[in-house]
Amino acid sequence: MSARGFVLKESDLLPLSLGAALLGTGGGGNPYVGMLRARELLRKGASVEILPLEAIGDDDWIGSVGGIGAPVVSVEKIKQGQECLRALRGVEEAIGFRVSALISEEMGGSNSIEPILTAAYAGLPVVDGDGMGRAFPELQMSTFFIYGLDPSPGAIADDKGNVVVFKKVIDMYWLERFARHVAVDMGAAAGFATAPMKGAYVKRVAVPGTLTQALEIGRTIMDARAKRHNVVERLLAKTGATLFFTGKVADVRRELKGGFAMGEARLAGVGEHVGAEARIAIQNENLVLWVDGVAKVIVPDLIMNLEIETGEPITTEMLRYGQQLAVIGIPAHDLMKTSVALKVVGPKAFGYPELEYVPLASSR
Amino acid sequence: MSARGFVLKESDLLPLSLGAALLGTGGGGNPYVGMLRARELLRKGASVEILPLEAIGDDDWIGSVGGIGAPVVSVEKIKQGQECLRALRGVEEAIGFRVSALISEEMGGSNSIEPILTAAYAGLPVVDGDGMGRAFPELQMSTFFIYGLDPSPGAIADDKGNVVVFKKVIDMYWLERFARHVAVDMGAAAGFATAPMKGAYVKRVAVPGTLTQALEIGRTIMDARAKRHNVVERLLAKTGATLFFTGKVADVRRELKGGFAMGEARLAGVGEHVGAEARIAIQNENLVLWVDGVAKVIVPDLIMNLEIETGEPITTEMLRYGQQLAVIGIPAHDLMKTSVALKVVGPKAFGYPELEYVPLASSR
Repeated sequence: MSARGFVLKESDLLPLSLGAALLGTGGGGNPYVGMLRARELLRKGASVEILPLEAIGDDDWIGSVGGIGAPVVSVEKIKQGQECLRALRGVEEAIGFRVSALISEEMGGSNSIEPILTAAYAGLPVVDGDGMGRAFPELQMSTFFIYGLDPSPGAIADDKGNVVVFKKVIDMYWLERFARHVAVDMGAAAGFATAPMKGAYVKRVAVPGTLTQALEIGRTIMDARAKRHNVVERLLAKTGATLFFTGKVADVRRELKGGFAMGEARLAGVGEHVGAEARIAIQNENLVLWVDGVAKVIVPDLIMNLEIETGEPITTEMLRYGQQLAVIGIPAHDLMKTSVALKVVGPKAFGYPELEYVPLASSR
Repeated sequence: MSARGFVLKESDLLPLSLGAALLGTGGGGNPYVGMLRARELLRKGASVEILPLEAIGDDDWIGSVGGIGAPVVSVEKIKQGQECLRALRGVEEAIGFRVSALISEEMGGSNSIEPILTAAYAGLPVVDGDGMGRAFPELQMSTFFIYGLDPSPGAIADDKGNVVVFKKVIDMYWLERFARHVAVDMGAAAGFATAPMKGAYVKRVAVPGTLTQALEIGRTIMDARAKRHNVVERLLAKTGATLFFTGKVADVRRELKGGFAMGEARLAGVGEHVGAEARIAIQNENLVLWVDGVAKVIVPDLIMNLEIETGEPITTEMLRYGQQLAVIGIPAHDLMKTSVALKVVGPKAFGYPELEYVPLASSR
């Protein structure tokens, strides 16, 4: 594995977690606790190298880890820290060898940081990319699985020392089903490791550069704050995101169903959107944005809420009545928009049979 | 491993499954389908040796397999046959070596036959004994776990090819919890393999001779039927069981709760018991027998129902209004009656805080 990447600095962690929170598109869990843990490890001398996709060898084995459960739970139930490491060891023991790098299943929310934390424990590099380019509620919604990764073996571990290995699963849906139920048993906050992948496969199907994308988003937000610039404006200029709505949270419905946070948020327009109404459908993440009844951004494209004043990314569990939000959109990566991918992450897959996916145009 | 046992004959299978059905104490699932499968294998040339406990070497590794799920389901959902074998292989791969014999977790119901079926597939001998001397609804209720077997690793497999390995579980209750939920995902009819045990441990904690006991019970029933003798009378004479009630099923309540068949049966006395009423509490198995409000037989002692006319063991899912039953009791093995064991399989463990366990005296 050649090393044309960079070594993650302690000062990268805060912008990374901020950018990851935004790319979480409302879900993915809060990356803050994982960030604090990773910072502690870096301060103690751990070193994590970030590798661009091109730097991976075709025959390297790349592992993937992340938290599994309901984000609403993980706000209250803080992980012990080594859940993902134990899950990774479970997978490695099942296959009989160790992986040589880690990659995120989703670059969004806490799972953007979990591989870094595990890499710091295990002394591994992390690949600059992920399987979603955002967050999604289910394991099978990553490009790794969409494009055919054999889901066996996977493993799940909790804070108590339990490790369950999905030694042989016939498809992703069974893996998701088993893992989700065991995760609920484990208190809905567990670490997961998926089947390792060959480097050649990762280079072909991973959404590239999303770790540096998160880092840039975070740096843009922090820089704008420091300079008292308008965070949203700077972000639009820097990332090619489009502003779709500015409004005040008028209503939030949320319920926990089978380990998922399901719900809907309604926003009453402010500023240039006075008199208009926005509605956001939520399944852990923001899935569809309607403005005055017209679908403006549709999953898999990214819908993100920021507090107008502070530029703080607002996850679905943080939505509160009266918050003033900017709702922005970013096109999903092309790998998420193929007909194969849309069967898994398009609007119909999420239970909106009436919605045809219309790709969001880049504002760049 | 010395061979002072006997080779199981095809003609042993029917009496064995009949005796196992009775020792199932109302639960444990129907051994008939497993029996048919084992018969097919023996006819095709498979050979299964039954070893007395004394014949096991102290350093031999003994595996244990069985079905897991709700018996009500397994009546309708017939196993594919190799679920337990695949679960065993999952455990063996996790520990890195093969076992040299199998033993039943419970000698009662279908799990009396499952190890024989798996042994026929795998070319292994089966130990004459088990972990309960009857059937019980949960994994942790076997002497193997009661007396301290580390529950890791266990494995569960379904008919579709899924294999889940409980690589590290901190205690039996977590194993039971994970396994039960995965079993429900698998359609409540899966094969389970528990952590292998050293021969020395099995010799110390297994309930001895229960496979031959089941065989004798079955032979007694079949012999009495052939000679048109009274089956119940012959059984009492041969096994030291006590007759507690003869009655007609007046009422049966059953519901499926979290994978368990919970309920109660009421019998109106016939013959010498006319005018009396019996009540049997059910949690997959018969747990408590009251006659006219007085607890006569209490778990872990064995409560078994036989159809008076035919001597057919009647499992809880087979209970029907109007059936004429003999209710007999057999004392549990001493290993199930220590204070340690009673904490797990005594009446209080099953949610009867008001019941003090009074050991049933043997009628011999």
